[in-house]
Amino acid sequence: MQVHLNPLGAMDLLSQLEVERLKNNTESEAFALFRNCCLAVLNVGSHTDSSAEIYDQYKDFSVNLLARERGIKIELTNPPASAFVDGVIIKGIHEHLFAVLRDILFYHTRRSAETKAREQQEPRQLTHTVFDILRNARVIDATYVPSMIVCWGGHSINEVEYDYTKEVGYQLGLRGLDICTGCGPGAMKGPMKGATIGHNKQRIRSGRYLGLTEPSIIAAEPPNPIVNELVILPDIEKRLEAFVRVAHGIIVFPGGAGTAEELLYLLGIMLKKSNVEQQLPIILTGPRQSAAYFNEIANFIQNTLGDEALQLVEIIIDDPAGVARKLKQGCADVRQYRKSVGDAYHFNWTLDIDPQFQQPFIPNHQNMAALDLHLEQDKAKLAANLRRAFSGIVAGNVKDEGIRAIRQHGPFQLTGEPVLMQMMDTLLQAFVDQGRMKLPGTAYEPCYRIIR
Amino acid sequence: MQVHLNPLGAMDLLSQLEVERLKNNTESEAFALFRNCCLAVLNVGSHTDSSAEIYDQYKDFSVNLLARERGIKIELTNPPASAFVDGVIIKGIHEHLFAVLRDILFYHTRRSAETKAREQQEPRQLTHTVFDILRNARVIDATYVPSMIVCWGGHSINEVEYDYTKEVGYQLGLRGLDICTGCGPGAMKGPMKGATIGHNKQRIRSGRYLGLTEPSIIAAEPPNPIVNELVILPDIEKRLEAFVRVAHGIIVFPGGAGTAEELLYLLGIMLKKSNVEQQLPIILTGPRQSAAYFNEIANFIQNTLGDEALQLVEIIIDDPAGVARKLKQGCADVRQYRKSVGDAYHFNWTLDIDPQFQQPFIPNHQNMAALDLHLEQDKAKLAANLRRAFSGIVAGNVKDEGIRAIRQHGPFQLTGEPVLMQMMDTLLQAFVDQGRMKLPGTAYEPCYRIIR
Amino acid sequence: MQVHLNPLGAMDLLSQLEVERLKNNTESEAFALFRNCCLAVLNVGSHTDSSAEIYDQYKDFSVNLLARERGIKIELTNPPASAFVDGVIIKGIHEHLFAVLRDILFYHTRRSAETKAREQQEPRQLTHTVFDILRNARVIDATYVPSMIVCWGGHSINEVEYDYTKEVGYQLGLRGLDICTGCGPGAMKGPMKGATIGHNKQRIRSGRYLGLTEPSIIAAEPPNPIVNELVILPDIEKRLEAFVRVAHGIIVFPGGAGTAEELLYLLGIMLKKSNVEQQLPIILTGPRQSAAYFNEIANFIQNTLGDEALQLVEIIIDDPAGVARKLKQGCADVRQYRKSVGDAYHFNWTLDIDPQFQQPFIPNHQNMAALDLHLEQDKAKLAANLRRAFSGIVAGNVKDEGIRAIRQHGPFQLTGEPVLMQMMDTLLQAFVDQGRMKLPGTAYEPCYRIIR
Amino acid sequence: MQVHLNPLGAMDLLSQLEVERLKNNTESEAFALFRNCCLAVLNVGSHTDSSAEIYDQYKDFSVNLLARERGIKIELTNPPASAFVDGVIIKGIHEHLFAVLRDILFYHTRRSAETKAREQQEPRQLTHTVFDILRNARVIDATYVPSMIVCWGGHSINEVEYDYTKEVGYQLGLRGLDICTGCGPGAMKGPMKGATIGHNKQRIRSGRYLGLTEPSIIAAEPPNPIVNELVILPDIEKRLEAFVRVAHGIIVFPGGAGTAEELLYLLGIMLKKSNVEQQLPIILTGPRQSAAYFNEIANFIQNTLGDEALQLVEIIIDDPAGVARKLKQGCADVRQYRKSVGDAYHFNWTLDIDPQFQQPFIPNHQNMAALDLHLEQDKAKLAANLRRAFSGIVAGNVKDEGIRAIRQHGPFQLTGEPVLMQMMDTLLQAFVDQGRMKLPGTAYEPCYRIIR
Repeated sequence: MQVHLNPLGAMDLLSQLEVERLKNNTESEAFALFRNCCLAVLNVGSHTDSSAEIYDQYKDFSVNLLARERGIKIELTNPPASAFVDGVIIKGIHEHLFAVLRDILFYHTRRSAETKAREQQEPRQLTHTVFDILRNARVIDATYVPSMIVCWGGHSINEVEYDYTKEVGYQLGLRGLDICTGCGPGAMKGPMKGATIGHNKQRIRSGRYLGLTEPSIIAAEPPNPIVNELVILPDIEKRLEAFVRVAHGIIVFPGGAGTAEELLYLLGIMLKKSNVEQQLPIILTGPRQSAAYFNEIANFIQNTLGDEALQLVEIIIDDPAGVARKLKQGCADVRQYRKSVGDAYHFNWTLDIDPQFQQPFIPNHQNMAALDLHLEQDKAKLAANLRRAFSGIVAGNVKDEGIRAIRQHGPFQLTGEPVLMQMMDTLLQAFVDQGRMKLPGTAYEPCYRIIR
Repeated sequence: MQVHLNPLGAMDLLSQLEVERLKNNTESEAFALFRNCCLAVLNVGSHTDSSAEIYDQYKDFSVNLLARERGIKIELTNPPASAFVDGVIIKGIHEHLFAVLRDILFYHTRRSAETKAREQQEPRQLTHTVFDILRNARVIDATYVPSMIVCWGGHSINEVEYDYTKEVGYQLGLRGLDICTGCGPGAMKGPMKGATIGHNKQRIRSGRYLGLTEPSIIAAEPPNPIVNELVILPDIEKRLEAFVRVAHGIIVFPGGAGTAEELLYLLGIMLKKSNVEQQLPIILTGPRQSAAYFNEIANFIQNTLGDEALQLVEIIIDDPAGVARKLKQGCADVRQYRKSVGDAYHFNWTLDIDPQFQQPFIPNHQNMAALDLHLEQDKAKLAANLRRAFSGIVAGNVKDEGIRAIRQHGPFQLTGEPVLMQMMDTLLQAFVDQGRMKLPGTAYEPCYRIIR
Repeated sequence: MQVHLNPLGAMDLLSQLEVERLKNNTESEAFALFRNCCLAVLNVGSHTDSSAEIYDQYKDFSVNLLARERGIKIELTNPPASAFVDGVIIKGIHEHLFAVLRDILFYHTRRSAETKAREQQEPRQLTHTVFDILRNARVIDATYVPSMIVCWGGHSINEVEYDYTKEVGYQLGLRGLDICTGCGPGAMKGPMKGATIGHNKQRIRSGRYLGLTEPSIIAAEPPNPIVNELVILPDIEKRLEAFVRVAHGIIVFPGGAGTAEELLYLLGIMLKKSNVEQQLPIILTGPRQSAAYFNEIANFIQNTLGDEALQLVEIIIDDPAGVARKLKQGCADVRQYRKSVGDAYHFNWTLDIDPQFQQPFIPNHQNMAALDLHLEQDKAKLAANLRRAFSGIVAGNVKDEGIRAIRQHGPFQLTGEPVLMQMMDTLLQAFVDQGRMKLPGTAYEPCYRIIR
Repeated sequence: MQVHLNPLGAMDLLSQLEVERLKNNTESEAFALFRNCCLAVLNVGSHTDSSAEIYDQYKDFSVNLLARERGIKIELTNPPASAFVDGVIIKGIHEHLFAVLRDILFYHTRRSAETKAREQQEPRQLTHTVFDILRNARVIDATYVPSMIVCWGGHSINEVEYDYTKEVGYQLGLRGLDICTGCGPGAMKGPMKGATIGHNKQRIRSGRYLGLTEPSIIAAEPPNPIVNELVILPDIEKRLEAFVRVAHGIIVFPGGAGTAEELLYLLGIMLKKSNVEQQLPIILTGPRQSAAYFNEIANFIQNTLGDEALQLVEIIIDDPAGVARKLKQGCADVRQYRKSVGDAYHFNWTLDIDPQFQQPFIPNHQNMAALDLHLEQDKAKLAANLRRAFSGIVAGNVKDEGIRAIRQHGPFQLTGEPVLMQMMDTLLQAFVDQGRMKLPGTAYEPCYRIIR
């Protein structure tokens, strides 16, 4: 089976030179990545979070680029059938494929070695790159009024929690708020589904469902076709920066290591002195049965980053309408604040992000083992290091490269101050016990070992 | 609590004279009806199908019209809280209230006594009235391409059936088809919810969710706010005519007496010689566990209206995508046919409907008892009479007036040819046994007695 | 040559009954009128203001209505070639033809004898009819912000005056104001052409060019295709009422008898006590060379209606930008005023118009001779009578029926108080001398005789 | 007087880094150019074609860039008053200023030295740059159907010719065709004004009025605010390439040296073997009184480039509707052709342009004197050289730098084969005699000397 797809979005106006450069790419590493991301996007219906499994299942799938004088076409060979309705690709998936082309191949070839070099030296260049990627994806809108709620939470949550995320999304949608998540199932899909219904009842046809992902996670957490704006950032750090700069409010639903990573990243930044005036409502919420979970999280934050960090967040249990009301008000506050300081609504330029949160962390065995994990250090630095630890665990759980590394070398070794190690162990064990590490179906084999 | 609502839709441009006429109406019977329909629309979240119960619960609710030089406003006193989000009415419900004003009061005062007299004599005048109501509601669109699927089925269905209707709606939405139902819960809500998600994935922002209702049923089956076009026809016969003239395809899901009424109405018309060329796909469908139900329906049709009637429908079990595919093709056939005969796409003018299906039937004890129920009569006539019998049972089950009549005079008496009476008894008993007559919660007390 | 035209605007959704009623009209007087108005609209490029001449030239032109199940079509036989571009009718003219069908035939058949009877007794019914015609023509927009400038003035003006009207229109367009005129050439076309360029430079794509006309004048003053909203009111009095109720500001350019009629109508109404609070800027303007003309007009007003009337208007000579600035500010005042009294922006409901300005005046020899023309009467009454006198002169100059009557019975005889007669004679003679009565080309033969 | 302008178009979404880079530019040569182009755009109403004169008149005018977190603002000090209406800048001029910022400063800083180097070596890189500039200006639309008519002709033409260009524009507009010119008065403004009215009558709200200019000519020929898409290409060669690649048809009205340059450029390209299949209608047209002018042009073409070149064009005298009809048909042929070869509609990729037509020619005394002007060379080469000669004369007539050079060093010296020199002299003298070299008002002092 072979399908040809016409270009959409920013990809429908390429010059001959650009088309040719894309074509000449087909043997590159980037192209292999592109192929895998296409597969992930096409495979959205499936029920696995193992990238490796997906890649194995569709070995005869291939993707090709066709150069036409009019522009570029994508040719799919043996794509998953679930992406098609009566032989025609679902429009949302069609759009996602060209988003993958745009971000993985096109932007990649445009972002020169020189730019990358500059990014390493100058944090402002990094922020420019994040902005430029979002702008190139047409996600930045100068007329947009603050209403983007970033929702974080696990891809593997139970049904009660899932229904709760849907209800929160519904209440957000009823209040005209938009949703941004990391794509994928669970807490990343529920709020979008709920908001869809809320937007419909309020006759809002311009509802935004923004998905921010990165190449190594997209296979495990493919974008649901409800996502009507998809951006693939080059690495997890740029993705996190994109999240916090487009957010006008943030919700943290129950989740596992990935959610912990996101929360630590956020707190590490917000603890910075220069950000003390920032308006950015952060709400941790879940159904009644998740109350214990949030207790645990709160304890971990308090014990590691202190009371100051805990005061940055609000925990609301079992009150979807209350959460939505708070965020509606929060968006109004954000608007007021941005106006007062002259900042843009669509991108939080004034948020001050330290290089330690921007520079990519490569979660290999060596780097993981070398993490400086002890309590008596600057809180932001501690947050940055803890963030890296959880980032590595996510990689080991669901990312292709991480899984391979664990298979080859065994679990990551995490060492550090015993009392901190104890806290991490407790938290991680709770994630494991609650089934938050992986989708249900198989026993979870930890990819880390806490060395006390 | 008091709320003022600005006019929407066709009601935002009234002359002073029209505003005054509306105002002068407040003591009329029509105004009482208007008040009750407003209440029904506002009360959409509730879980009862007893109009009387709703009216009892909100005795202190009142509605008022305010004349402004700019136009008319609706004032609500003590409305149900569920219609509001943080003190602001949900936009969809706001629209529905002005649809009620438009159809119940405004159109009512415009449709003169003279017109009503002419309707009695001339069927074409009746069809004109149905068209005029729809056009006045801005539901008729000259540029619309055939894709309106009318979905019939019970308001009280089980969860498996409900999920099935959602899945069918989803598959219709994925194929760009729109949904028209009679409003209310169950099989009338499921397809719309499903289609919403399907439309979203296909990036269709103009999806239509058309609700056709009538004053005496609206309280029991209030329009879900997803309904983005609401029309209240003056009586059940005009509502049925509106259904079949806007439909480009019809689905019958499992249901009770109301669904049987609709199906008999449709078959009675389609059996007419002059309609033999008509293109109108009719599909009976449900999940695997509903197979027996459809067997029973099929038997009843065959035994009463004959093989010819049975051949007008297709029964598809447990295949949502198959149903949607058939209807997609069916819509293309409808388009082709309409084009070939020069008929409009938005309204089936050439469908020939007999006066016996158009003239209102008042389901009181006398009329019910007088129904001519025997097999050896013209099939269309038999269908018309059977339709009336089921119509009466619906009234006795959920309509305010019907319930009162039953309370006062006991159940309707249905007499006729014993073998036919036997068939009806069997069918109705099955509806009772399967809980299709009323929403679950109370034991069903039949409102009819079959006299053999 | 035969052309079929598909329905546009409100005419694209008719019921079978309505189509049939239109069809059955073809022998009626209204249909003859319809045919002539179609001809006028098609003949827009021509350079004559004699209806009779136009009708004579196109004796083999005919129009027909074709009933289709989908709706109504207009069939033209031997239409003027200037309305077509490469065999395809100009879109603006196409729209105008269906506006003619809508207002002359469709609305006519809908406005029952009963309604007409009520109009005679009740002024509010008349105002309702004016509103209803405008609404039916989709000219009323509830969201419109006050910016409609009514421009009155002669159809026969010299080139300097014409360029001045264009420049005023350009300055209005630059300020986002819209134009309403009586259609036709000269002062009714110039402002629209100018505004088109002004709107373009300001990137205003929704500029409104509203033409209000009536059946007996449309042939002499056919709507330029720039007119993008055309309404044909049934008689001159309803047309005048429409002008003043949709206006947010009024400009009077140099003109002849018709312009005098309009100005007298306006002043007669504005002099009324109950209108003293009304906000409605009225500006008389022209190029430097027209200064004398406005002097004459001012004298006539002062001598007949008094200082109070003169103070209602402002005369601005040779300052297009100044005129536009005044009206921009005036529109803001209108908005403020309407808001304060709760009146609509799109239709001036609170303007109090006396029945003597609303009831149709038939300008035959008998009625003209019977006019009560003396100075010592209520100013409003005097204005009303003077208005009628000028109305008759317009009819005698350019309207088909008027021209025929004059041909048959000789000029109208106007009698009255000698000093008033003297004033009228002077004014009218000035109009004649300046070539304002008829388009240039023939010597003007007065259609009136002042009996002193 | 000081005015701040908010960003529009592509300039409303800049990153902090980009804003800063723009700011840091203010001392650069590009910024001086930017300032001058802004002045030209603001000064559109004036009646001079001498850049120097304009720059002298507004010595106290300055422009500044203000960095805001939200983006960039333009600050104007002492701008020409004619660009404002009641203190507010005309929207069209506002847009043009940000087009100048975008093309002169922003694109300039983005187009790296590396790119410029590559352009010199590789023609495809040059074409990419032209495309990239147009795309960045949002002028390229993938859904556009061929209808862009490029109109060339003099900025100094007489009234009869000007009215003729308006009438041609009107006829093009009536047929739904769009206009592209080089901006400025005369033959570059007339077609746009005419098309505006034509588009209005056909209810086309999306009419395109594309202006392509370059920094050194913009002051002499500022864009009329009707231009709703403005692009400033970096040099005359890229501007010419943009013209021919976006054109679906080309009209040449009477003009002087600039028009001759454009025509020679076009013919030189179209003569190429590889372009023999190209569909691109070229029409030379003017009013009856211009017939002799076109004779002269035809003779010059025939005598220099031969019959083959002459057959590429069609001369139509005094027939605006005929011209428009031809081009309407021509656009259909272009569409058909592009479809057949798979080329884009919005940009003619397959047109083969020789490097000699792409590489910038600097018209200084040395280069002008060195031109190889003799008949016995490859026709394309001859066309390229003649093109350069006329280009230099345009520079000497109206471009700032050219005028200065002439003042300093005296007229350009053109040498070559005597018979060719004779032809040029004749043609140029005719331009001088007909007042086509400069706007009327001063005696024309030739900036060249033909050395025979």
